[in-house]
Amino acid sequence: MISPEVLSRYISTLGSCGARGDGGLQRYTYTAAWSEAQATVRMLMAEAGLDVYVDAVGNVFGRLPGSSGEPVILTGSHIDTVKGGGKYDGALGILAGIAALGELRAQYGSPTANLEVVALCEEEGSRFNANFLGSRAMLGLVSTEELATTFDDAGVSIREAMVGVGLDPDDVLSARRTDVAAFVELHIEQSDRLHEMGEDIGVVTVIPGVVWLGVTVLGRADHAGATSMRRRSDAFVPAAQMALAVREIALEAGDPAVITTGRWDVRPGAANIVPGEVSFTIDVRHTDASVLSGLVNEIVHRCEMLAERSGSMVQIYEQKRENPSAMDERLRTLIEESAELLGARWRTMPSGAGHDSQVWAKHVPSAIMFVPSQDGRSHVPEEYTSPEHCALGARVLAATLHRLAYRE
Amino acid sequence: MISPEVLSRYISTLGSCGARGDGGLQRYTYTAAWSEAQATVRMLMAEAGLDVYVDAVGNVFGRLPGSSGEPVILTGSHIDTVKGGGKYDGALGILAGIAALGELRAQYGSPTANLEVVALCEEEGSRFNANFLGSRAMLGLVSTEELATTFDDAGVSIREAMVGVGLDPDDVLSARRTDVAAFVELHIEQSDRLHEMGEDIGVVTVIPGVVWLGVTVLGRADHAGATSMRRRSDAFVPAAQMALAVREIALEAGDPAVITTGRWDVRPGAANIVPGEVSFTIDVRHTDASVLSGLVNEIVHRCEMLAERSGSMVQIYEQKRENPSAMDERLRTLIEESAELLGARWRTMPSGAGHDSQVWAKHVPSAIMFVPSQDGRSHVPEEYTSPEHCALGARVLAATLHRLAYRE
Repeated sequence: MISPEVLSRYISTLGSCGARGDGGLQRYTYTAAWSEAQATVRMLMAEAGLDVYVDAVGNVFGRLPGSSGEPVILTGSHIDTVKGGGKYDGALGILAGIAALGELRAQYGSPTANLEVVALCEEEGSRFNANFLGSRAMLGLVSTEELATTFDDAGVSIREAMVGVGLDPDDVLSARRTDVAAFVELHIEQSDRLHEMGEDIGVVTVIPGVVWLGVTVLGRADHAGATSMRRRSDAFVPAAQMALAVREIALEAGDPAVITTGRWDVRPGAANIVPGEVSFTIDVRHTDASVLSGLVNEIVHRCEMLAERSGSMVQIYEQKRENPSAMDERLRTLIEESAELLGARWRTMPSGAGHDSQVWAKHVPSAIMFVPSQDGRSHVPEEYTSPEHCALGARVLAATLHRLAYRE
Repeated sequence: MISPEVLSRYISTLGSCGARGDGGLQRYTYTAAWSEAQATVRMLMAEAGLDVYVDAVGNVFGRLPGSSGEPVILTGSHIDTVKGGGKYDGALGILAGIAALGELRAQYGSPTANLEVVALCEEEGSRFNANFLGSRAMLGLVSTEELATTFDDAGVSIREAMVGVGLDPDDVLSARRTDVAAFVELHIEQSDRLHEMGEDIGVVTVIPGVVWLGVTVLGRADHAGATSMRRRSDAFVPAAQMALAVREIALEAGDPAVITTGRWDVRPGAANIVPGEVSFTIDVRHTDASVLSGLVNEIVHRCEMLAERSGSMVQIYEQKRENPSAMDERLRTLIEESAELLGARWRTMPSGAGHDSQVWAKHVPSAIMFVPSQDGRSHVPEEYTSPEHCALGARVLAATLHRLAYRE
């Protein structure tokens, strides 16, 4: 049986790669810390008796070959972290997958279908604006052009960064896989519902859709001393009103609607000049595509009204739209039955965050399950899931994969 | 008599130094454009029959020596501009001073007291955070340490920049002057009161005091997707409420109170992360020191209340406080009488912006007069004052200087 001790050891071993002084982790894609984590995962996979290989973008695979030559049942998650993240986000899905495949091999030997666990090279988009690069490359959705024209803050392209860690960017299309029949992911919840309710497993029904709006408010920059209040067209005033208004829209809509104004640029940005131009982002999420569209329409309407009332101009454009991804019903049922059999307290729930599963779900049957995040914290050094919950999650994952890959 | 044509020619000659493609000017202190402007001013001073010299920080002087060896009556303004500024802010005070001294010399010959016009090297603080450097150096208020430890955005110190234009920073204390008996400045209004009222000359009663507050609101950064609205402590929400509240405070207080929140830093500043920390500046100005203090107290109180209500923390610290500077009553009367004699429509008024005169006023009798700014615009390429108003201002200045420096 998969023990809390094994998961504990896995977590602390991988968690030492990219550790910073403050207890946080930083494993940006294609850096030395990332390479070190890759080597660690390869070692753990080999130790679990899996055949190890790496693809063109640096996704690391541990394979348990099937006896029938049937397609691949895939599990895993991502190996990269955000800036100052923790040891569980992404990492746990890889490590639980290794533990699960190791346990299945030890208990049941070779599966009928091929079983693979993958450490996906990049999901967060922290270094490059290239979310889900690992999953997308496996689905044939990454071009050599994207690699050459996407840069980090220092101006290094993905292409250059790949060469730096010994990968061949021209080979990117070889990462494409057409043999994957199902994708099952385990991840920390990143919210506090399971932790608060005292439950063990969240079976995700849907990963919410997300729309990013870019808003620019145009007023007039003026001298902060010489320009009386009544003569100003301070762009920050309507912008602040918009931020407060869109928050009200989210509160009125209720869960699971979330709206965030996270990125701000106030120009010219001097203490003694009235703001003439303010740009900010609005991140809107909902699990229902039509509600999401309704929220976006309402936001645009309210922002335009507030701009008009203040006599300033506003420009709003949609930077990205990802529709909600429903998880596969058959896979969800398998996870629920496995949880039930193992005595886990489980519930269905929508996801809050985005995950690799949402990319996979558009191409193959996919599902994702959550284990509790203490206090709902994630993307911070304090991120934590107990060894018992890590092990229970890995056991539910193993039981699910057993039913998918081992024929009676 | 000083003609509009002379002032027109002066303005366009100096206005060609540092001209940018968009019609704006950029004459940052100790740059090539600044050196070019200096050379132009030296040429115009010499042409007007003045003795020209330059001090250790690059202030340029045109001198009409007095017959009695008495102290100096000083006029002038600053030669530097903001980013993308116009041809009048600062420049007009220098050029009107040159025209005035040229005219006095031609009409009346040598004065009793020494008469000098100065092109002050820096006032705006646009390149270096070193407002009023020229005036402060003349008052002995600039140290070699300040020159070595104040940097522009590119990391160049004032010291290095001075060496680059042939000045000796170690000699800074030699710029100190103890022979100045009065300072009289002419400047564009930078607001629209004169222009709106159809008046010609504003005799400034007081330059407002200014307090800069640095505010930091601490909430908690969280995942924009995984964190429900009710679980957030979004630092931007109370920060936006504070910005709107301090604007209300200014509107309630009425003119001449102005409050500006001009500089914003929202961290971590990603579209998909709830803001955890927001810093911004509050620029508060009023002509009455006790009203100014009252406004600051009210702002601090309101910000603390809003932080408490939202469950976030706020830190507020005072970054700078400059008390209001009252202009000298005798000099004001001289300006008013001169305006009256010349048939100019004049009024008394507080200043909006800060000026070199406020630094001088704390040490010697000082005064400043305004000419109209079209539509009240300044610090922009569109900044404009008619040649007639430039000439009328120069004539009022000449008449004032005549009464100060020529004994019957």
